[in-house]
Amino acid sequence: MQQPNAPRTLGIVGAGQLARMMVPAALELGIRPRVLAEAPGMSAEIAATQVGDYRDLDTVRAFAKTVDAITFDHEHVPQSVLTALVEAGVAVHPGPEALLFAQDKLRMRQRIAELELPGPDFAEVRSADDVDAFVHAHGGVAVLKTARGGYDGKGVAIVRSGEDAAEFIAHAAETGVPLVVEEKVPFVRELAQLVARRPSGELRSYPLAETVQRDGVCAEVMVPAPSTSAETAEVARDIAETIARELGVTGILAVELFETADGRVLVNELAMRPHNSGHFSQDAAVTSQFENHVRAVLDLPLGDTALTAPAAVMVNVLGGPRGEAMPDRYARVLAEHPRAKVHSYDKASRPGRKVGHVNVAGEDASAVLAEARAAAALFA
Amino acid sequence: MQQPNAPRTLGIVGAGQLARMMVPAALELGIRPRVLAEAPGMSAEIAATQVGDYRDLDTVRAFAKTVDAITFDHEHVPQSVLTALVEAGVAVHPGPEALLFAQDKLRMRQRIAELELPGPDFAEVRSADDVDAFVHAHGGVAVLKTARGGYDGKGVAIVRSGEDAAEFIAHAAETGVPLVVEEKVPFVRELAQLVARRPSGELRSYPLAETVQRDGVCAEVMVPAPSTSAETAEVARDIAETIARELGVTGILAVELFETADGRVLVNELAMRPHNSGHFSQDAAVTSQFENHVRAVLDLPLGDTALTAPAAVMVNVLGGPRGEAMPDRYARVLAEHPRAKVHSYDKASRPGRKVGHVNVAGEDASAVLAEARAAAALFA
Repeated sequence: MQQPNAPRTLGIVGAGQLARMMVPAALELGIRPRVLAEAPGMSAEIAATQVGDYRDLDTVRAFAKTVDAITFDHEHVPQSVLTALVEAGVAVHPGPEALLFAQDKLRMRQRIAELELPGPDFAEVRSADDVDAFVHAHGGVAVLKTARGGYDGKGVAIVRSGEDAAEFIAHAAETGVPLVVEEKVPFVRELAQLVARRPSGELRSYPLAETVQRDGVCAEVMVPAPSTSAETAEVARDIAETIARELGVTGILAVELFETADGRVLVNELAMRPHNSGHFSQDAAVTSQFENHVRAVLDLPLGDTALTAPAAVMVNVLGGPRGEAMPDRYARVLAEHPRAKVHSYDKASRPGRKVGHVNVAGEDASAVLAEARAAAALFA
Repeated sequence: MQQPNAPRTLGIVGAGQLARMMVPAALELGIRPRVLAEAPGMSAEIAATQVGDYRDLDTVRAFAKTVDAITFDHEHVPQSVLTALVEAGVAVHPGPEALLFAQDKLRMRQRIAELELPGPDFAEVRSADDVDAFVHAHGGVAVLKTARGGYDGKGVAIVRSGEDAAEFIAHAAETGVPLVVEEKVPFVRELAQLVARRPSGELRSYPLAETVQRDGVCAEVMVPAPSTSAETAEVARDIAETIARELGVTGILAVELFETADGRVLVNELAMRPHNSGHFSQDAAVTSQFENHVRAVLDLPLGDTALTAPAAVMVNVLGGPRGEAMPDRYARVLAEHPRAKVHSYDKASRPGRKVGHVNVAGEDASAVLAEARAAAALFA
C-alpha cells in the first residue's frame, strides 16, 4: 500500500466494460488506473497490470499493494476476501459492509424494510410450500430470485406456484444460496437514481433516469426521466441518498426503482458501481459517473452532476453485428449520425451481449431518442 | 500491417500529453491505441507498447507493423522516416508531404504565400546583412525564427539588427537549418482555427478560438473567440479549410492566427495534430479534437464540432505546484470548483512546463473564464 500525500493510483478488480470506462476518467485526472483482470484480452486490458482470480485472497492482496484504493468492475468479490483486505488496512470502496447489500438480494430487502423505505413485499423461501403461500397471498404470481449471483435477468423467474420454483429450490438446497420471493409489482415504468458518495460523506445525485429493460437487460435510458413530477424526482432522490448514507456506500450507488400507476416509487435493485443507467453521463453531464466514481473511491471532492443538455438518451448495443465488430459499421454509423457518441467495449459480438452503447444529447427528448435508436440499430 | 475490414488499432508516435489524451478517445470508440514512447514513464505510458527512437526507421517500421495507421504526438519524426513508411505502404496521417509544412517554417511561409493566403511579410536569411535589410524595410524590428525544431517560443527571437541575429546565424550555419525572418505583426490578439480532415476529404471546422500566450506559451483559450464578427470567423475558417485541403492535411490542423487592429487575419503558425488551442473541446464540444483526430487518421467519418455550451475556456496549468503534483491539490481545487474539468498529464512539476489544464463551460463567458482561472491558479 503506497502512502503518498494524495492518491495517485486506483485499483479496479475486474476488467469488464465498467473498468474500461473508468480508465479515461482516471487518466484525465492524472490518476493511474490498474486493473486485476480475470483473463487476458478483456475489455479493460489496457490498464491490466495483473491477471488472476478475484476470489483468491493472496491474489487480491498482492494487487492491493500496488494501488492507493481498491474498487470494482462487478459485485462478485467474496465477503471473506473483502473483509480480510479491510482488516489489512486496504482502502476498499465500496466496503464489504455496504457491498453485502448489492451482493445479497435477501439481505438488501431486509435492510430496505428496516429503513422503512418502499419496496415490494418479500419473503425468504425454503420450500415449494413457502412459494405457494406467498403466491396465494399476492394475486397468484410472484418473482423468485436467487439471493446471490444473479444479474441481467439471470437468477430471476416469474412463478405462479411452488412447482414453478422447483429448479430454483433444488439449486438453493445444493448451493446454500437463499431464495427470496417478491411481489410482482404492477409498475408502469422503471426508473434509476444514481448517487455518488465519498467516505467523508459528501453526496451528489444525478438527475433521475427512466430505464427500459428488454428480456431483463437494460436497453434504453432517458434523462431526465420524461413526464416526471418534481415530487417523484424528490422521492427517488431521497430514497437513493438515504440508502447511500445508511448503508455507508462509497462510489456510485445505482438504485433501480419501479414506478406504479398510483405514483408510488419502490426499490427494485441496488448496484454499487458505475451502472448502465448512468452511461448517459459520459456525454451529457458535467461530471460522468465514471469520474465521480473514481473521485469518490479516492475520497476526492465530487463533481457537478448537472446535465449539459436538456435531454440525453443512451441506447445499448446488444449482441453487436453478427460476424463483425462495432468498428466494421463505423463508416455508416458515424457518417449518418455525427452527433451520436459511440462507445464500444472492444468485445466480440454474441447474441444479447452488451458490446457498446450510443449516447445522444440535445434540446428535444424525442429527437434525441430517435437518433440514438437509429444509430444503435445500425450495429444490429 | 494488419488489414482488417475496418481499422482496429491506432499507432501514435510519441508519448506526451497529446498521445495521452488520444487514448480515451480511441478507447471509447473501441480502437486499440498503441504508443511508440521515447522513454519509459512518459505521459502516455498506459498505451506504450514499444520504447524507441522515432528517428530510427527500423524502430518505427517495427512499430507500424502492429497498427492500422500511424499518427503523431509531435512533428519531429524526420521526413526520411516518414517517406520510407509511406513507400512501404503504411497509412501515415498526416503524411510527410503535409507534415513538411508544420515542420519547416520557411517552407510553410512560401506555401502560404503561393496559396495567396494572408501572412506576415517574410524572407529567408543567411547573413546579418539579410536581417538588417529586412528590419530596415519593416520599421526597425522583425521576428527571427529557426525554420525547424522550434516550439513553444523556443527558436524564436525579436531582432532589431543583424547583430541581434548573430547567435541564430551561427547556429544555422552549423546545423544547416535555414532561418526565416518575419514582419513583426502589430496584432491586437491571437486566434486559432481548428479543422479536422480525413484522407477521403471530409472536413469539419471547430468554432474559432481566442488564444492568450504568455512568454511564447499558450496560457488561455476562449471559445467562441469573444467579440468576433461573423466575417472574421468566416475568413479564419476559410483560411484553415483552404490550408487543410491544399496541403492535404489529415487529422487535426491548427492554424494560429494574428488579428490586426484593422481587422485583418494573418497566418502565424501551423500544427498538424491535436493542439493546445483545442483542449476546450474535451468538455465543451460534441466531438473532442482528440476523437476527431482519431477518426480522421483512421479515415472514419468525422463528428459534430459544435459547442455544447455557449462559452468554454481552457486555462493551462504551467509549472505545476512546486514539490508536489497536481493531485496533491485536488482536495481543495475539486471542492471549490465542482464544475471545473481538471486534466493532469501525470508529469512532474517544473517551471513553465505544461503539466495539465482546466476546462470550464457554461452560459456566461466571463464567469467561465473567472472560474477556470481560479481553479488553475490553485495549482501554482
